Amino acid sequence: MSPTDLVKARLLKGMQDGLPELTLARRVMLRRVEEVCRRFGFLPFDTPALELRDALLGPQPSGEQIRNIFTFSNQDEEEVGLRFDLTVPLARVVCTYLQGEIPRPLRRYAYGPVWRYDKPEPGRFREFLQFDIDSVGTPELTADAEIIAVIDAILSELAVGGYVIRVSNRKLLNAVGEYCGADAQQARSIYRVIDKLDKYPRERIRQELGGGLKDESGAFVEGLGLSVDQIARVDAFLDLPNEGNNAESLSAARALLAENALAMEALDEIEQMLAWLKDYGVPGPRSQGRVNFDLHLARGLGYYSGPVFEVVLTELPSYGSIFGGGRYDNLVERFMGEGQGIPAVGASVGVDRLLAALKQLGKLDLLLGEETAGPQVLVTVMDRERLGDYIAMTRELREAGIRAEMWQGGKANMQKQMKYADKLGCALAIIAGSDEFERGEVSVKDLQAGKELAAEAATREEWTSKEKRPQTVVKRDELAAGIKALLHVDPV
Amino acid sequence: MSPTDLVKARLLKGMQDGLPELTLARRVMLRRVEEVCRRFGFLPFDTPALELRDALLGPQPSGEQIRNIFTFSNQDEEEVGLRFDLTVPLARVVCTYLQGEIPRPLRRYAYGPVWRYDKPEPGRFREFLQFDIDSVGTPELTADAEIIAVIDAILSELAVGGYVIRVSNRKLLNAVGEYCGADAQQARSIYRVIDKLDKYPRERIRQELGGGLKDESGAFVEGLGLSVDQIARVDAFLDLPNEGNNAESLSAARALLAENALAMEALDEIEQMLAWLKDYGVPGPRSQGRVNFDLHLARGLGYYSGPVFEVVLTELPSYGSIFGGGRYDNLVERFMGEGQGIPAVGASVGVDRLLAALKQLGKLDLLLGEETAGPQVLVTVMDRERLGDYIAMTRELREAGIRAEMWQGGKANMQKQMKYADKLGCALAIIAGSDEFERGEVSVKDLQAGKELAAEAATREEWTSKEKRPQTVVKRDELAAGIKALLHVDPV
Repeated sequence: MSPTDLVKARLLKGMQDGLPELTLARRVMLRRVEEVCRRFGFLPFDTPALELRDALLGPQPSGEQIRNIFTFSNQDEEEVGLRFDLTVPLARVVCTYLQGEIPRPLRRYAYGPVWRYDKPEPGRFREFLQFDIDSVGTPELTADAEIIAVIDAILSELAVGGYVIRVSNRKLLNAVGEYCGADAQQARSIYRVIDKLDKYPRERIRQELGGGLKDESGAFVEGLGLSVDQIARVDAFLDLPNEGNNAESLSAARALLAENALAMEALDEIEQMLAWLKDYGVPGPRSQGRVNFDLHLARGLGYYSGPVFEVVLTELPSYGSIFGGGRYDNLVERFMGEGQGIPAVGASVGVDRLLAALKQLGKLDLLLGEETAGPQVLVTVMDRERLGDYIAMTRELREAGIRAEMWQGGKANMQKQMKYADKLGCALAIIAGSDEFERGEVSVKDLQAGKELAAEAATREEWTSKEKRPQTVVKRDELAAGIKALLHVDPV
Repeated sequence: MSPTDLVKARLLKGMQDGLPELTLARRVMLRRVEEVCRRFGFLPFDTPALELRDALLGPQPSGEQIRNIFTFSNQDEEEVGLRFDLTVPLARVVCTYLQGEIPRPLRRYAYGPVWRYDKPEPGRFREFLQFDIDSVGTPELTADAEIIAVIDAILSELAVGGYVIRVSNRKLLNAVGEYCGADAQQARSIYRVIDKLDKYPRERIRQELGGGLKDESGAFVEGLGLSVDQIARVDAFLDLPNEGNNAESLSAARALLAENALAMEALDEIEQMLAWLKDYGVPGPRSQGRVNFDLHLARGLGYYSGPVFEVVLTELPSYGSIFGGGRYDNLVERFMGEGQGIPAVGASVGVDRLLAALKQLGKLDLLLGEETAGPQVLVTVMDRERLGDYIAMTRELREAGIRAEMWQGGKANMQKQMKYADKLGCALAIIAGSDEFERGEVSVKDLQAGKELAAEAATREEWTSKEKRPQTVVKRDELAAGIKALLHVDPV
């Protein structure tokens, strides 16, 4: 093998290795979310990573759509691709098993990696973990309310702190468009401008709806070209009370849009959904403020057709929505034909994104509790003639349910083994040399307390003098019980 | 959308959908295996599905190697591929984080799908779930013994019934080759013939080692072309006592191969490993027969360099090995250069394959216990004006930890709702109409008992008359407690 034959051991661009801390956090979050979904009676349902490209993108995808996913020809000369979400595979599954192999309605959850050929950015990867919950084959609004209820239960379970679930209805967006004399396409553009209300004063919003404006940098921002009358109507809509009192927002919207049948339908659906949410135990803004009717909510995806919702963390509003979803009644048309839709509603959460948010909030420890990625105890090796004894100790600890490991890195002094134990995040290290064996004991170093002492030390000298990590002794024939007691005692 | 634009909703060839029963079984198995790995102190460590093709296959892969995996050029004009196992990504990871970002030794477990472009066969898929456990950076044989110990703990945990862990050492294979005057390549061929001992009489084995033979169909089976003296030496090796008494096999092999230094090294390692396995609590064949030194064991993969092992189920010997592994000290050479190996030992289990074996043995229920994929209770909808009440019931059940669902499939009679509950595997269905609401009660159908009655009925007529599923009544204001009691009572 010549040196030029060497392969560089590098991660692909946009990919992320699941180092132990991250992988553990993912597992804990997935397990918690899964438990809630199961309590709600949703079925686990996995699909493969690869699908036909047509199934993923439809029969006539645009070049841009194709460039945004991982797609290739396989050896059977089929165009295939890695799934970019879990919703399209669900639509495929529902149509694959139309003959009754699966229950209908199908209420399922799924999680797994999805792949997108995005431009990698910090915190944004080309492979990322997604968790989806959907009800397919149910036209009932109770199902929409239930998806919001399961999101609410998940966020309570994950102890993310305060959050607001914003709800609205895609029909309202279209109705507002109609009210302003705009078509569906324009209505979406209007909402895109409305979405900037957090950032800009109303005057700038009006300019963007109309003829455009020069921004701070002097660049021209094109406007939507709405007429003065149209802008006045948007203005009237924006004057409605929003996100504070659902009943008030509803009745004000009813008054303004009274002439518009679609608006009445949308508002009826919102009102009904809010009522059912109370039955589901998810309170509106008057009590704890978890569900807010947000007149300005649009949600990006084109395929939503009814209720839409998203969640923002109260303590991290700038992070954007961490959970989102809505009703999509037309997704299976790709397989079934136009007008052959199957009603469906669902929500997605980006697991890694939510973990990053919890990390930013300092709440990751709350999620993990006592769980660390590595062993709690390292059994060090002082005397290589005694390996069998160290193995037996390690085994006893494991049999008692303690996560334990024996040093196996070859001949190494105690300092090296301690460094390794620290790196693994062990709470305790067991040391047994000939003295201990003679006395029928083991010595136990408290690594956590050692670290705290080192942290408290003001200078390097002081640290060195304090480095004597607290050490105690446990009887060899009461090893597991002794270690268990030490693990539960506050080490300080 | 014209009908020709429709996309066929089909699964890709060789892929498998994870229908709820399968997905649940996978999750339960993964969780149990993971718990054992964590008790042993192994770290969770995920890697992405995609890697550089060179990392997967080395710098100069053969056409066949390339055809056996899913590989393509991405938009960055890199050759990439989907991982075909979890060992190569581990080797890549170890070399990516050489600067100390990860502990050394690295003891890690990982699971996830792997992809191979195999010819699909029943039970053999192009995407399948694998679980790997490895210790990297440890030259110690204790690590090999520990990998076997964790396999043993996993199989005990999964209640697979009886099993035998066959162990040997790749050095023994080479030593037997030397003893017979064969090179490493020939030694492997000899083992390939030896492997047929289960199927054929010794005479046929001798012929295959020598000049070949005509088989029953009259076709010529080419022989290895060994000399009479060489065949006699293989014969002497095959006469050694095997798989019954480890000590006896060891001492007989020592006597026969006494002149061969490599054989002595191999036998020393095996003996030491067996001794440590006793310390790990994994007994040899004299006691419960879990670990057997098998002189004839080869294991396929070319990269093994020391101890090798595999597991067969006692009740399903024909199924082949369900767990396998060994020491591979040279795998990172692709990234590091020749002679720059990092010592490593590991094992893999095919999760779906093991599940299929358990299913065949009727032991899947043992693994799943009380867990079913779907809800335990369906709250039926009799009166659509009362949806809020049904939602509240469902919510109360969930809050009590009962997996519950409310019917949401639109207007439907009771029969349709019951059929749905049966399909989901619900144990109970709750029925509440105006009568029940008035009396402050709910009716509860026992679906399991109903199914048993139907199964007992000899004729269709008898079944129809028996179809009255057992029904009981629970007070509305003691709903959760009442249902809990019913779920724990034997329904017969």
